Parts: sequence; structure tokens; C-alpha cells
Amino acid sequence: MTSQTARLEAFSDGVFAIAITLLIIEVHVPGHEHAETLGHELLRIWPSYLGYLTSFLTIGVMWINHHYVFELIARIDRTMLLLNTLLLMMIAFVPFPTAVLAQFVETDGARAAAVLYGATLTLTALAFLAWWRYASTGRRLIDEAVPDEVIDDVTRSYTPGSLLYGGAALLAFVQPWASAAAYLGIAGFYALSLAQWRARLGRSPR
Amino acid sequence: MTSQTARLEAFSDGVFAIAITLLIIEVHVPGHEHAETLGHELLRIWPSYLGYLTSFLTIGVMWINHHYVFELIARIDRTMLLLNTLLLMMIAFVPFPTAVLAQFVETDGARAAAVLYGATLTLTALAFLAWWRYASTGRRLIDEAVPDEVIDDVTRSYTPGSLLYGGAALLAFVQPWASAAAYLGIAGFYALSLAQWRARLGRSPR
Amino acid sequence: MTSQTARLEAFSDGVFAIAITLLIIEVHVPGHEHAETLGHELLRIWPSYLGYLTSFLTIGVMWINHHYVFELIARIDRTMLLLNTLLLMMIAFVPFPTAVLAQFVETDGARAAAVLYGATLTLTALAFLAWWRYASTGRRLIDEAVPDEVIDDVTRSYTPGSLLYGGAALLAFVQPWASAAAYLGIAGFYALSLAQWRARLGRSPR
Amino acid sequence: MTSQTARLEAFSDGVFAIAITLLIIEVHVPGHEHAETLGHELLRIWPSYLGYLTSFLTIGVMWINHHYVFELIARIDRTMLLLNTLLLMMIAFVPFPTAVLAQFVETDGARAAAVLYGATLTLTALAFLAWWRYASTGRRLIDEAVPDEVIDDVTRSYTPGSLLYGGAALLAFVQPWASAAAYLGIAGFYALSLAQWRARLGRSPR
Repeated sequence: MTSQTARLEAFSDGVFAIAITLLIIEVHVPGHEHAETLGHELLRIWPSYLGYLTSFLTIGVMWINHHYVFELIARIDRTMLLLNTLLLMMIAFVPFPTAVLAQFVETDGARAAAVLYGATLTLTALAFLAWWRYASTGRRLIDEAVPDEVIDDVTRSYTPGSLLYGGAALLAFVQPWASAAAYLGIAGFYALSLAQWRARLGRSPR
Repeated sequence: MTSQTARLEAFSDGVFAIAITLLIIEVHVPGHEHAETLGHELLRIWPSYLGYLTSFLTIGVMWINHHYVFELIARIDRTMLLLNTLLLMMIAFVPFPTAVLAQFVETDGARAAAVLYGATLTLTALAFLAWWRYASTGRRLIDEAVPDEVIDDVTRSYTPGSLLYGGAALLAFVQPWASAAAYLGIAGFYALSLAQWRARLGRSPR
Repeated sequence: MTSQTARLEAFSDGVFAIAITLLIIEVHVPGHEHAETLGHELLRIWPSYLGYLTSFLTIGVMWINHHYVFELIARIDRTMLLLNTLLLMMIAFVPFPTAVLAQFVETDGARAAAVLYGATLTLTALAFLAWWRYASTGRRLIDEAVPDEVIDDVTRSYTPGSLLYGGAALLAFVQPWASAAAYLGIAGFYALSLAQWRARLGRSPR
Repeated sequence: MTSQTARLEAFSDGVFAIAITLLIIEVHVPGHEHAETLGHELLRIWPSYLGYLTSFLTIGVMWINHHYVFELIARIDRTMLLLNTLLLMMIAFVPFPTAVLAQFVETDGARAAAVLYGATLTLTALAFLAWWRYASTGRRLIDEAVPDEVIDDVTRSYTPGSLLYGGAALLAFVQPWASAAAYLGIAGFYALSLAQWRARLGRSPR
């Protein structure tokens, strides 16, 4: 990481931090008509809690990825700036499909909601992949101290993401609930696989 | 604190700052039907002000704790990243139970609301404790310049937190109002006890 | 400013930046029933725009003050941490009275709304004054390179603030509109007087 | 960029990051009455998505501009502080006209909504221009290492912005849809033209 990239990363961190914290706004306080049975009502809205958990974990893992990959970057150019803006636009969008899925997963709208959620995460993963492929192809923006094997590791780690989310989005057409479970599972999987290539990064001369 | 931990702390600070500032969104502007008696209405919603005060103080104290403990940390690993994400997820959740408690403390829903608030703070305190125990056990992530007595001080200071909040949450089942008072009292207690171990920290070679 | 104070200032900056940006949430989008006369409706809600302007300017000036005074501080202690948290709690509260005043200034609730706004700013100014008096009394937390005359300048500049806001809040009881104009006027006055002691600060050996 | 300007830029970055992320709040979750036809409803609100895209791109490009121009600045003064606050006030205002345009573009209110959006962006561009002209006239606040030709480049790049937005706002009176398309087009145009003078900046001795 150089001083040239530091401010872009700080701005990106800001958007990640705000998007992840705004998720709570979509967990709605029950109306006063539920005063007598508030306990049950607070349990009934469990999809909102689960949506909060899934999206918080997803954005959190993406932030960790974004943060560590940035350490491999030595310079930025105009295309990179635009690709990063595109990625942030997808990250900041996540609270919307999270709320839609949480509020409609138990209704007839479950399928459309689960597809929207999956489509958003697929596009986000693709934006991340485009960002990384642009930076890493021919080591375009990569710091020269980074060994090739680290680059290959990251590429291997990112490529399946959009396929996994795309698959879960397709699954949503037939089994909305199964796809919702898959979204949570993918976030957990990435949290663990991240740990692995992170361990490898630790061996690189930084 | 090292450069390795600096960005994680900056991201965490962002989430703390946003969560604490979002609290005001849940203090609702009265509807226009209250125009003629706006003064009384603004006084009637005092639980919202008190909830804002309690949660602001609670998150503020937790930020101060998080900030100073981070100064004792020399490195981070994957488990630490996940535990920190979990802690931030609890912190960012606080505006929700704050709003529920403020809006239902004077209704039949007071008990459920007070239990939800207490359960949230108990889980937050437990997430903080897990974070610290993981970092400090066997001095796993601790800077070598930090003396053992400082670590013991912090551990002694944190351990009762989850018990206090857990106790207040149980109290909520029988006395919602008393538990609400306890939440404010605990925040005040921590503000003061923080000052004490902070004074000790001041003696450590930083 | 030292590294010890740097993180507290960064956290404070975050709260200031979020509070000032959240002001726009309280400028409400008209309902669809106004589609045919949207132009008139957008003009009719001018108090929301003026409230946005006044509070943005007020928080902006307070941030500038907070920022420059922090440069005179060499260390922080527990009382300072609590006073700063109190100040941030008032700053983050400002969007609420702003929305109340904007929505009720043309109704029977104008008086109560204007009093609430003035009371909030009076308390904010008092929190700022307490913060500064605690830091500056006997040069408790002041950097030794700062000459006494600079401290006296800042004290002279801050002291009238709470009186001005208190006076405007009292004025609200008899003339809500006049007090609303005063709030905007005070923000403008401070923007200018700030410039003056800032010019003096420029002469200090920093 | 000097340490004197660093904190002002950090605060500005915070406001930009929050304003751009708050845009998602105005993409409203459909009501439960749309459960059976949620898929159609999610498609029907496409103006909200397009508004999100346009404003995200617009604020994103303005942030990139603000960021790079700040690198040419060596010092700040009181007028600069006020002009920067004014610019941030316009940036933070953008989510409001974005929501109005998205919700009324298919109604009789389209004209008023498109004019409001255009007027906001025109004022924002003017605030940016005033900021830059004040800083650059007679090289008032410019770092001495910056060659004159870079300053002229930036001036040439900024001047047409307010004219373009002003023209699109006038177009809104006769063709609301055409002006909405123009707002998106201008953001794209600036993303590209930015790349050009950025390339030139790269040649300057920084």
C-alpha cells in the first residue's frame, strides 16, 4: 500500500462502515398495536435478525477482502477508480435487498425477494472480481514486492464467489428458503476460506 | 498498536461512530396532530430522550474501552477478525432495542422490550469479553511491552460486565422499570471504573 | 495535538460528519398526493430547507471550533473523555430539534419547537464551554507551546455562545419566528468571529 | 497537501462517504400489499435504481475531483473553510432531490422534480467552482510546486460543469425525461474527462 492508494482505501472503508451499520435501520420497530404481545412480535420478526446477520457477515467479509487486497496494490488509475466506485455502489445497495428479503420471505413474494438478494450479491461479487482482475492482469497495479503465487491465491479465492452467488440466485427461483440459507452459508464459507489465503499472505514479504 | 492493527481499529471506530449517531433517528418527530399541544408531547416522549442518553453513554464507554484495549494489541489473526466483526454486529444492533424500549416502556410491552434491551447488552458484553479473552489468553496477541498486571486489570474490569447486564435482563422479567434504570446505572458505573484502570494504564510503558 | 489525542479527535470528527449529513433525512419527500402541485409543495416546505441550512452551518462551525481547539490540547484524561462524549451527545441530538422546528414553525406548535431548538443549542454551547474550561483552567491539558493570550482569546470567544443561545431560546417564548432568525444569525456571527481568533491563532508558534 | 489541510480533507471525505451511502435509504421497500406481485413491483420502481446510480456516480466523481484538487492546496483560510462547508452542504443535500425525482418522474410532478434535481446539481457545481476559483486565483492557496498549466487544466475542466447542469435544469421545464437522461450523461462525461486531466496531473511534480 502506498500513500497514493491510502486515501482511496480510507474513503472505501467509510462506505463499507456506513453500509454495514445502516443495516439496522431496516429492522423495524413494531407498531404500538403490538404492545400486549410484544414478546411474540419480537420473535415473529426473526427473518429481520437473520437478514441482519447474513448481510453484516457478507459485507464484513467483503471489507476484510477489500482491505487485504488493497495492501497488494501499488498505484491506482482512472479505470481502477471507476471500478472501485462501481463496487462501492453495489456494497452500499445491500441494505435494500436485505430488507426486502427479510420482510417478504414468509409471503408470496419470497421468490422475487430471494432472487433480488442473490442478484445483488452476484453483481457485487462480479464487481469485486472485475476490480481484482483489472488490477492483477499482467501485474498492472500490483506492488512489485508481491510474489506471483500470492496473486494466484487471491484469484483462485475470488473466482468461485460470483458462481456461488449466481447459483444461489438461480436456486431462489425454485426454493427461496434454501437460497436464503445458502447466502448465510456462503458468507460463513468465505469467512473461513479467507482465513486460509490470509495465512498464505502472512508468508509474503510485506 | 501497530500498523497492522491500525486499519482494523479505524474501521471499528467508523462503525462505533455511526451506530452512536444513528441513535437519534429513533427519536421520532411528533405527528402534526400534536401541533396545539406540542410542548406536552415533547415532554411526554421523555423515554426516548432517556433511551438516547443510556445507549449513547453505553456505546461511548464501549468505544473508549475498545480503543484503549486495542493499544495493547500487537497483531491480529483470522479469529480476531471474526470476533471483532461479531462485536461490531452487536454494537450496530443497539439502536433497535433502544427504540423498542423507549416506545414500549410505558405500555404492556415494557417487559419484552426491557428483556430485549438487556439481552442485547449482555450479548454485546459477552462478545467483548470473548474478544479480549482470545487476545489475552497466553498473551496471544498482546504487545510484549505490556506488563502482565495491566492485562489482569483489564480482565478484572471486563468480567463483571456480562453478569451485570445479564442480571439486569433477568430483573426485566419482574421489574421492567428497575432494569431500565439499571442499564443507565451500569453505563455510569463503567464510565467511572474505566477511569480507574485507565489511570493504571497510564503507568504502563507505552 | 499529540498521538494520544489523535484518535479521540478522529472519533469526534466521525460523529460530527455523520450528524451533519443525517440532517438531510429530516427533509421529507412529499407524498404522492402532491404530484399535480409538486412545484408548490416543494416551495411550501421552505422551513425544512432553512432548518437544514441553519443546523448545517451551526454544526459546521462547531466542528471547526472543536478541530482548532483540539490542536491546543496536549493530553486527555478521564474527565475530558466524559465531557467530550457529552458534547458529542448534544451534537448528534441536533437533527431532532431541527426537524421539529422545521415541521412546526408554521403551526400552533411553533413556540414549543423554537424553545426546544434553542434549549438544545444552549446545552450544546454549555457542553462545549465546560469542555474548554476543564481543559484550559490552570492550563490543565494545554500544550506548553501555546501562549496564554491564545487561551484567553478562545475563552473570550466561547463564553458568549451559551448566553446568545439562551437568550434566543427565551425569545422563542414570545416570538418563535424571531428566535428562529436568531439561530441562523448566531451561526453566521460565529462563522465570522471564528475567523478572527483563528487569525490570531495563526500567530501562535505551532 | 499539507498536515494543515489533512484534517479538513478527512472531514470532507466523511461527509462525501456518508452522503453517497445514505442514497440507499431513499430506495423504499415495497409495502406488504405487493407480496403477490413483488417481482413486478421491484421492476416498477426502476426510477429509484436509476436515481441511485446517477447520484452515486455524480457524488463519486465529485469526491474524486475534490480529493485530487485538495492535493494542489498548500494552506487553508477562513473563506476556504466556509466555501468548503457550503460545498459539503450541497453534497449532503443530493439524496433529497434524488428521492423526489425517482418518486415523481412518472407522475405529473416530473417537471418540478427534474428542475429541483438540476437546480441542486447546478448549485453544487457552482459551489465547487467558487471553491476552486477562490483557491486558485493568483495561486492564493496553491502549493508552489504545482505548475501553472495544471491549474489552468483544472479550471478548464470545471468551468463547463455548472453550465451543463444549468442547461439540463432548463431542459427539465420542457422535457423532464430528457433532463434526467442528461444528468446521468453528465456524470459519465465527467468520469471520462476527469480521467484526462488526471492523466495530465500525473505528469506534474508531486
